[in-house]
Amino acid sequence: MNDTPLILVTNDDGIHAPGIRALIEEVMPLGRVLVVAPDKPQSAMGHAITIHSFLRLNAVDLIDGAEAWSCSGTPVDCVKLAIYKLLGGRRPDFLVSGINHGSNISINVLYSGTMSAAVEGAMEAVPSVGFSLMDHGIEADFSQARTVVRSVMRNVLTHGLAAGTCLNVNIPKNRGEELKGMRICRQARANWEDEFETRLDPTNKEYYWLRGEFKNEDHGEDTDAWAVAHGFVSIVPTQYDMTAHHAIAELNTWKHELG
Amino acid sequence: MNDTPLILVTNDDGIHAPGIRALIEEVMPLGRVLVVAPDKPQSAMGHAITIHSFLRLNAVDLIDGAEAWSCSGTPVDCVKLAIYKLLGGRRPDFLVSGINHGSNISINVLYSGTMSAAVEGAMEAVPSVGFSLMDHGIEADFSQARTVVRSVMRNVLTHGLAAGTCLNVNIPKNRGEELKGMRICRQARANWEDEFETRLDPTNKEYYWLRGEFKNEDHGEDTDAWAVAHGFVSIVPTQYDMTAHHAIAELNTWKHELG
Repeated sequence: MNDTPLILVTNDDGIHAPGIRALIEEVMPLGRVLVVAPDKPQSAMGHAITIHSFLRLNAVDLIDGAEAWSCSGTPVDCVKLAIYKLLGGRRPDFLVSGINHGSNISINVLYSGTMSAAVEGAMEAVPSVGFSLMDHGIEADFSQARTVVRSVMRNVLTHGLAAGTCLNVNIPKNRGEELKGMRICRQARANWEDEFETRLDPTNKEYYWLRGEFKNEDHGEDTDAWAVAHGFVSIVPTQYDMTAHHAIAELNTWKHELG
Repeated sequence: MNDTPLILVTNDDGIHAPGIRALIEEVMPLGRVLVVAPDKPQSAMGHAITIHSFLRLNAVDLIDGAEAWSCSGTPVDCVKLAIYKLLGGRRPDFLVSGINHGSNISINVLYSGTMSAAVEGAMEAVPSVGFSLMDHGIEADFSQARTVVRSVMRNVLTHGLAAGTCLNVNIPKNRGEELKGMRICRQARANWEDEFETRLDPTNKEYYWLRGEFKNEDHGEDTDAWAVAHGFVSIVPTQYDMTAHHAIAELNTWKHELG
């Protein structure tokens, strides 16, 4: 057993995104870093894994002192390949995912490849944190986000995380003002009002582009949506147990008859 | 407002899988049926959606009396296209997904395209149920599964479902014995012990195939894994709120310092 913690880093924007570089630089002082991240953007891939095709890994010279691999698959594939191929089944001591270019608040936790990688880490009993900066720009300013990474990781190293949980950390866009602080939140009950933009191809056949608008009608002040809208960093403890435990009693009153 | 319920049917095995045909036939007596399902297998696509490419829909002549479309995207794309393109924003009265060829118990709810479609239905406030038969064979016998669909749908039509929840129904493989009944369960805390089979391509470069073994070390008798292993149908109420509410108090004791 080695005393230096092993930290697995991944993301969904791809290994060459500025956000993962910022994250690697912030966690390198904490231990040995292994980067396994997608070779292309894999946003909105959710918890998808590759079962109908094979996977590739390619060594990448990314940052001095960090072993880095690009992977042909999804963010969750990256976590599985890191643990079961590169580490031979050994679990890293921590997993960090991001820093995502864009928000992962509310139900976006389900669509997000960044957060799905963190959830996969939790399934593997690895203390895992996903970080997202609410700024899609390639020129996004990660300086405040880096401060948040340092603060959250100090806590995770000190306290660990409850079994079966990971953290979903969202950081407001840097508008030149100080962050107001950090809030422990629940996931807002918001949703996407989707729309499909219809176009015609050169043979006059329709095709559709997904365009959605995020609508939050959950007015609780304990939500991630409220926190980031008010200048706070939101931290949502997130679990892979999707059981609606509160609904079990009611379902047991139903008559379940076969035939 | 029309009195005939509108039932949206989807799956992840693709529109030509035997399982979706069985499901369509069982729900057709309950109302008007709209089928929107992937044009190819989309197993293990989780909650992925298509944002870097466009989507197509093609009318399919599948079963007399049911409008059917094949979709180039994921199961969740199918739900979004059904609601926001084909129905112009109207919600169907019910959504059913499956019958999946293979198990979706325990953490497989997160990887499963079939269940992710049902979870997307729940996000859209549509009472939604995912059905899975624990038999991968193309010749799988759906006769018992059909009985389960009828029974569960009778209950859902009568009682509705709690807001924010859907049902994950798993049906043991038909081994010629009667099903023992149905159990309301929680999702087992099992996991996948993965392995990657390494092969060499013709240029001697490695590639990897994911192979996993499902390991259940959760010995609770209230889990879906226990139920199906003992000949029962498992029904897990499933929610899209992934907040680990029980972990919030502990996180509030941490010192959250920026800088």
